[in-house]
Amino acid sequence: MCIFCDIIEGKIPSYKIYEDEKTYAFLDISCDVIGHTLVIPKKHFDCLIDISAEDLCSVMNTVQKISRHYTNDCGFDGVNLVNCCGEEAEQSVFHMHMHILPRKSGDNIKVYPTLAKLDLNLESICNELKMD
Amino acid sequence: MCIFCDIIEGKIPSYKIYEDEKTYAFLDISCDVIGHTLVIPKKHFDCLIDISAEDLCSVMNTVQKISRHYTNDCGFDGVNLVNCCGEEAEQSVFHMHMHILPRKSGDNIKVYPTLAKLDLNLESICNELKMD
Repeated sequence: MCIFCDIIEGKIPSYKIYEDEKTYAFLDISCDVIGHTLVIPKKHFDCLIDISAEDLCSVMNTVQKISRHYTNDCGFDGVNLVNCCGEEAEQSVFHMHMHILPRKSGDNIKVYPTLAKLDLNLESICNELKMD
Repeated sequence: MCIFCDIIEGKIPSYKIYEDEKTYAFLDISCDVIGHTLVIPKKHFDCLIDISAEDLCSVMNTVQKISRHYTNDCGFDGVNLVNCCGEEAEQSVFHMHMHILPRKSGDNIKVYPTLAKLDLNLESICNELKMD
């Protein structure tokens, strides 16, 4: 049982923005940002870690198409994208989804997170995390 | 003059995490979240709206590779992705970049934005924004 799979199959109604062979896009019902849109793969993947490379490309292609439409045709000035992968990263629905948050000058919204400065040793973090 | 192009070319030093033919990934120097990483295309594009579909796929492929590495090999429990496209969407460096913010249980970080509820008519918004 996955609420987003049910939306794709039409078992649950949604405010559809766009659909193609691999992806589905619809308005988030949280009523926070005008045009808040979710783009999902039609095939079920829990999150960013699990999605196939091909479906991830399809999702991002649709994200870009919609972002261009919102900025070119719908009067928005920019967009933010947000993805949560994993419960610890605040993911709530476990069907991979990219949030598009359309932005306008003077919208009084803050999407980029406010984060405290830490005393980090970037060189040692880099040595731990880098991929060889 | 683009600071991220200078980083790719090695004119400005960076804490490199990963590099392939099309993409470059390095630690964000803001010292906020441990492992805060930026993934950028080697070819210059201002933002998500401008990047070629092919380079966007390459960027997301690298984002996924690094996210898997951080969660599988480096002890993180999840990741958030954030992109800012346009000055009104809080973009500060105008070379397309995806933020990876690695997350751990109990890290006391909030990435998903806190947004006020609005009284929105989703049906009329959908009719205005949907793509035919």
